[in-house]
Amino acid sequence: MLKIEHIGIAVKDLKSAVPLFEALLNTHCYKQETVESEQVSTAFFLKQDSKIELLESTAADGVIAKFIARKGEGVHHIAFEVEDIYAEMERLKAAGFTLINAEPKRGADNKMICFVHPKETNGVLIELCQEIR
Amino acid sequence: MLKIEHIGIAVKDLKSAVPLFEALLNTHCYKQETVESEQVSTAFFLKQDSKIELLESTAADGVIAKFIARKGEGVHHIAFEVEDIYAEMERLKAAGFTLINAEPKRGADNKMICFVHPKETNGVLIELCQEIR
Repeated sequence: MLKIEHIGIAVKDLKSAVPLFEALLNTHCYKQETVESEQVSTAFFLKQDSKIELLESTAADGVIAKFIARKGEGVHHIAFEVEDIYAEMERLKAAGFTLINAEPKRGADNKMICFVHPKETNGVLIELCQEIR
Repeated sequence: MLKIEHIGIAVKDLKSAVPLFEALLNTHCYKQETVESEQVSTAFFLKQDSKIELLESTAADGVIAKFIARKGEGVHHIAFEVEDIYAEMERLKAAGFTLINAEPKRGADNKMICFVHPKETNGVLIELCQEIR
């Protein structure tokens, strides 16, 4: 765990959420990207080194759509940058945490990612992410 | 809005959550502080410049207790560091956002704080915070 890489926020509609977060954060969205394998469209914002990722589901039964149906819009995950995702996954498993993904998978923003189950982290969904080099 | 100053996470019990986040983040809690006026006990963690604040209610009817009763444990707010909290409050009001506090109030960690209503920010509770100098 190096530092927080980004915070992921589940929204129903990027078209309205992007201008709203532009007004809130007083900065422009610098990138939008769809990750078909994850069924999400994403939009990114940066304030100094703090990165915010908005997530809209591209499918009615996608992970983000289900999250919003259950909990409403809001913070979906906190992503931590790691140096070696395989080593960090081993460290967390040994410490008794449950990983949602047995292997890292491809995420947005050129990253390999893995999620830690929120049942053992006080309801917070933690993402590990490592830049693909 | 300069950058994310910290992320606030609502937990039922700091006594169990602190060692859990120490194991998760692979670092020690560096400060605990109770803010009686806010009815919270807090515990802080730092990974590089990313700060995590755990929040436990000190009262059965406190804001954090009510949040957990409604939504469960999890991310409670994202706090942004601002240079001039009064100017930022004016900017956000002019942009159509609703402030929960008419005036800044005293928060944990030597800060003046003000919350932005989550109804206009896709369910995300935003805190503005300015270091008291």
